[in-house]
Amino acid sequence: MKKINGGVTTPLGWMAAGVHCGIKRERLDLALLYSEQPTLGACVYTQNRMRAAPIEFMVARKGDNIRAFVVNSGNANAITGQQGLEDARRMADLTAKALNIDVSEVGVSSTGVIGRYLPMEKISAGIAMAAEELARGSKANHRAAQAILTTDKVIKEAAMQVTLKDGTVVTVAGMAKGSGMISPSMKAQHATTLSFITTDAVLTRSPEPQWQEAIDKSFNVINVDGDQSTNDISVFMANGAAGGPPVDDNAEFWNAVTKVVQSLAKQVVTDGEGATKLIELKVIGAKDTADARRAGRWIISSSLVKTAVFGADPNFGRVLAALGNSGSEFNIERVRLTIGTGDSSIVLFERGRPQLQPCSEGEVEARKLLSQKRIVMALDLGVGKGQAEAWGCDLSYEYVKINAEYTT
Amino acid sequence: MKKINGGVTTPLGWMAAGVHCGIKRERLDLALLYSEQPTLGACVYTQNRMRAAPIEFMVARKGDNIRAFVVNSGNANAITGQQGLEDARRMADLTAKALNIDVSEVGVSSTGVIGRYLPMEKISAGIAMAAEELARGSKANHRAAQAILTTDKVIKEAAMQVTLKDGTVVTVAGMAKGSGMISPSMKAQHATTLSFITTDAVLTRSPEPQWQEAIDKSFNVINVDGDQSTNDISVFMANGAAGGPPVDDNAEFWNAVTKVVQSLAKQVVTDGEGATKLIELKVIGAKDTADARRAGRWIISSSLVKTAVFGADPNFGRVLAALGNSGSEFNIERVRLTIGTGDSSIVLFERGRPQLQPCSEGEVEARKLLSQKRIVMALDLGVGKGQAEAWGCDLSYEYVKINAEYTT
Repeated sequence: MKKINGGVTTPLGWMAAGVHCGIKRERLDLALLYSEQPTLGACVYTQNRMRAAPIEFMVARKGDNIRAFVVNSGNANAITGQQGLEDARRMADLTAKALNIDVSEVGVSSTGVIGRYLPMEKISAGIAMAAEELARGSKANHRAAQAILTTDKVIKEAAMQVTLKDGTVVTVAGMAKGSGMISPSMKAQHATTLSFITTDAVLTRSPEPQWQEAIDKSFNVINVDGDQSTNDISVFMANGAAGGPPVDDNAEFWNAVTKVVQSLAKQVVTDGEGATKLIELKVIGAKDTADARRAGRWIISSSLVKTAVFGADPNFGRVLAALGNSGSEFNIERVRLTIGTGDSSIVLFERGRPQLQPCSEGEVEARKLLSQKRIVMALDLGVGKGQAEAWGCDLSYEYVKINAEYTT
Repeated sequence: MKKINGGVTTPLGWMAAGVHCGIKRERLDLALLYSEQPTLGACVYTQNRMRAAPIEFMVARKGDNIRAFVVNSGNANAITGQQGLEDARRMADLTAKALNIDVSEVGVSSTGVIGRYLPMEKISAGIAMAAEELARGSKANHRAAQAILTTDKVIKEAAMQVTLKDGTVVTVAGMAKGSGMISPSMKAQHATTLSFITTDAVLTRSPEPQWQEAIDKSFNVINVDGDQSTNDISVFMANGAAGGPPVDDNAEFWNAVTKVVQSLAKQVVTDGEGATKLIELKVIGAKDTADARRAGRWIISSSLVKTAVFGADPNFGRVLAALGNSGSEFNIERVRLTIGTGDSSIVLFERGRPQLQPCSEGEVEARKLLSQKRIVMALDLGVGKGQAEAWGCDLSYEYVKINAEYTT
């Protein structure tokens, strides 16, 4: 298994395009992804009960054979009622016609401002343009990855290659967007971060369990602002173009898929609205995995923890206060909180007592660690063997600015 | 029932003091509250599992006969292990001795930075000073109310008077603090906002059910930053000094108590860290009261809703997205969201469709309403008769500044 530079069209048989159709003022706003062959795959969707129209549309179909995905940015087509649902359906129809495939093979996704109707004339022209521009290669990858962005500052791509036993090389690649309204909790059949993973590996049955597991270890552990979106979706599509033996039970292959979505999830949180730092928290010693995940998520979602990290303030009490609110079990006498890695790590709390006194050397060191771009924290709950990671970002002035002025 | 100007010593038989003992650099940091007579009362505490030492200390006792309360600010005595617990106990002992009452009649509370040991010499000197300075009247009220503050900008006081059937006038008064780490969910026997309510009315049995109800309609509906504190406590103490008939079942009296705590809770949220606006959300048409409370709380806790209000941006989709995340039931075809009151209110969402189009006159009006200091929103979930209020504040640059620099 090796990491490569690549994007959604790096796996064989995949094409992509990104165009500007006028939803946004200047930037690319419509992406199209297309496999020359039929596919087998799986989708996970947001669990927000206020699901956007394209999510409703997708949930109502099986979604295991999507070979073309049309995505617009700049407008989420969310909370738009019956008309929104008809617009989502029409996006699929127009795409099916432009590509001469069955409408059941077309996926639809939208991201952007909530509560406005889609400008369907522009979308219709955009789909026609995008179908014309479909291509392979890094330019196509980048344009598609660009066209799905909203408040993101950078595109998010990742790719891995695995060599199978018979020598076949299969590729897994993906693109994602997401910067604000990021607190995904995606479930199969029910997952605004968007991510699209393509592969040319051969599958013989639904990859849903493996896909859910990969998402639970990646997008479902990140948090920017605690607001789960109406539009989250993560899609996995395999077209088998590389040939070779099926990978359904190939652990290395699924490991590569997990690495691709983990890379994308970290890119999303690093580009979180206003983020200046990435927080990587590892929770160990929990009662079980669910408890570890809940504690991790609660802590990285705390506004007080996030502002302390922004201010490089070793105010570790906020981490433990957030743990207390999570509902996860802990034994305070055995709780241990550290920041940093290896030799340079510092114990903040241990044996029921704070370990860092005001104005101590340790506090100065802790401030240094908290001034870096990547903050690593480890928290032992002291009650069991459950463990999980959680990735978040700090809360800065810029977050407030972006979100106070979003629709204006 | 009438509103009056007053504070904790306005009811008969109550005295108070606020002193500076050196926990903070300059400001008052230790308050003492004392009733000349024995009392009957009730406490509610935070449900955060990481309870501060003074909360542990209080939970372990019955807490229905507290006639003296010592409160320090500047240090929360939270996550301080066995030593913290001993320090809390010692605060009670010192206070009991200074006032010559039984230690079982003394309540202890702390607020401030988490994870540091209390400076017990300073506290000990402060208790002695405060016991000397105990007094009645507005100066004593203000000094006590000042001494419990942390990042608050203003003191919070409220008072009401009720005339009983026999002509006896009873007074209910209170003081509170709270600006950040405000997301209280206080339960009897298990409630960092602190509030202390005094009255001279006569009670004959534990007021716990009525007190819980008053808290559920006041402090438990407010939110500043979603982080429930380790130190929240709300205390109700009746000393009977006014005489007259018992008020255990007097609806007007409990209504007055509710008005006092509601006033204090609104003062807390209005003075929320960095807050520039008060958000009053009324949820109606919910399946039941619990669902209405959950929806309201989720919405006023959303960073995206709060930043939109700060930016005076009628981005109502964020309100509905937060509703979707709350888990509360709604019927989207019957959901109705308005802002403003009476004739000047504007419908943002109705009949499954957004009612405000970009750049419309309505949008301009909505922006005007959102530019005021008090934002009133009403949300009908369209499924039942449950209703509740939720009060929050916006999320501003100042919130980030305060919390990025709190311990420094």
